[in-house]
Order: sequence, then structure tokens, then C-alpha cells
Amino acid sequence: MTLSMYDASAPVFIRGLNQLAAILHKAAAHAQAHKIDPSVLVNARLYPDMFPLARQIQIATDHARGAPARLAGITRPSYPDTEATFDELQARIAKTIAFIETFKPEQIDGSEERTIIVPVRGNNIEFKGAPYLLGFAQPNFYFHTTTAYAILRHCGVEIGKMDFLGSLPV
Amino acid sequence: MTLSMYDASAPVFIRGLNQLAAILHKAAAHAQAHKIDPSVLVNARLYPDMFPLARQIQIATDHARGAPARLAGITRPSYPDTEATFDELQARIAKTIAFIETFKPEQIDGSEERTIIVPVRGNNIEFKGAPYLLGFAQPNFYFHTTTAYAILRHCGVEIGKMDFLGSLPV
Repeated sequence: MTLSMYDASAPVFIRGLNQLAAILHKAAAHAQAHKIDPSVLVNARLYPDMFPLARQIQIATDHARGAPARLAGITRPSYPDTEATFDELQARIAKTIAFIETFKPEQIDGSEERTIIVPVRGNNIEFKGAPYLLGFAQPNFYFHTTTAYAILRHCGVEIGKMDFLGSLPV
Repeated sequence: MTLSMYDASAPVFIRGLNQLAAILHKAAAHAQAHKIDPSVLVNARLYPDMFPLARQIQIATDHARGAPARLAGITRPSYPDTEATFDELQARIAKTIAFIETFKPEQIDGSEERTIIVPVRGNNIEFKGAPYLLGFAQPNFYFHTTTAYAILRHCGVEIGKMDFLGSLPV
């Protein structure tokens, strides 16, 4: 095999989303076992002006579905940011995975130099495909999935790095 | 261009390490401005049994130099985990960047299916190059750099996601 834009995008995001779902399942079970109102975890944050858990998940799924869509030249579907429960967050993750699974490698491969327009804080930023994926979409995705993990770990949920990484991709 | 194993490794880690260095500079300045003993930040953690900031940086640099080295078929150089100050952590990051910069694309390109042996929690795990990079080295790197960011953000250091992402790679 030769590394392709598909290899470096769709399966990477699907893998990360599956682990995010597993982490949220553990968080929901933790809340139940410890008689914690689940909304306390869903709204938890690491600092008053940081985004809470739910928003971290929303943004992670935004980047995860945005990358394959944009690389394939398709508009990223809009999801309303309304999730307020673990079940709703799980549904958003599942919907994102199902969307990414619709892409075939030939839609994404060859997009290294494709022009990608991404709204970033009110400005339309023009990227090339490969730097967009490696220097924007991936770091953003991992930033928000790790922050979700960190929020839950800070709240005492029994998770470890292997929950984040998943089974080793040998 | 066609995406290569070099593109997806060396410059990605260098970029992330430069941003990590920038974040640590802001943290050191924050400590000075607020008369906080810098060692409080260096030893800060998000939960009692999580690693502190210094260890997050050490592990991030382990993955950052391990990936290009292993993909190139070179043994990862060993760095003693002794850093206890911001200056020492900065020196470790700079040493890691300088090491990664020694690699030429032709040493890493074509390593998609190269067999990589990585010690993981006492077991030698055998990966192929591409899954090692995309499913192990990169997520580990981002996991520890984001956790470093999250620790500092939780301690009130004035940093934002753009400090983590850096200038947009258009």
C-alpha cells in the first residue's frame, strides 16, 4: 500500500469516534454507579471559560465529518448543536460515523492539493487538502477528543489512555 | 504532491512541538507575572493518578522522535526523564525538534508496510508503518500535547486553541 488521503482521514476519524463513544459509555456508567446526575458530566468543564464536555464532542464530530466531506468536495452537513444527554451525544457520534462510512476511497484520494475553504472564526480560510488534513482537521479532532477525555478523567471517571487509543492497530 | 509517510510524520510532529514550546513559554510567563512558583505548574495534574505536566511533555516528545526514527528503521534515542523546570522541558522539546529535522524524506517514505516493533506496557508490539503512525504515534502525541494544554488551561494560564494549532497551514 501507499499512504493515501483516504487512509489518513476516514478510518482515522472513525477509529477516534468509536473510542470517544466507548469513553462516553464508561462516563454514563460511572454516573449511574455513583449516583451522579449525568448532566453534571455533560456540562463539566476544566475552566469557567472553556467549553463543556457536550461542546467538545460536538466540535470533534464537526471536524471528523468536515474533513472527508471537504476533501471529497462535498459541503459538510450541518448538525444542530443541541445535544444535552449522553444518549444524544452518542447518537451524534453514531450519525457522524455513518456519514464518514459513506465515502469511498476514490472520492478522497488525490485531494492533496485540492482547494478547501473552511470558515475559521468568521474568515473563510483557503487550504490545500493535505495541510488542511494534517495541520488543521486532525489536530482539531484530537484536541477536542482529548479534552473530552481530560474533562471526564478530571471528574473521576475510570478511564485510561487505552480507552482513547483503542485496540492497537497492528 | 502525493501524501507521503514523511509528510504525515516529521513536519506534523515538528509543528506540534513548536506549538507546545510556545504554550510552555506562555505558562512560564504566566507563572512569573502571577508570582506562581513555576514548579507548581510543572507538577500540576488533572487528577491525582494522572501524570503531571512534565511527564506529559516527556511522553509527547517520546512519540514525536520515536515515530520518524522507527519509520526510518533507526532505534529511538533514549532521553532520561529528568526535566523539572520549564527551561529543561524547553530544552527537551528543542532537542527533539533538532533530531526530527535530521531526517530526509527518503529515509521515511515507503515505510507504510515496514515492520515496527514498539514496547507497549511491557510487551513488544509489532505494527506496520502506516497503522503505527496513524493509529498509535499520532494519537499518542496529540493526546499528551493536548493534556499538557488542558493542565495549563485548568491552572488559569491564558492560552487558546490557536496556541495549540499554530498559524494556519494554508
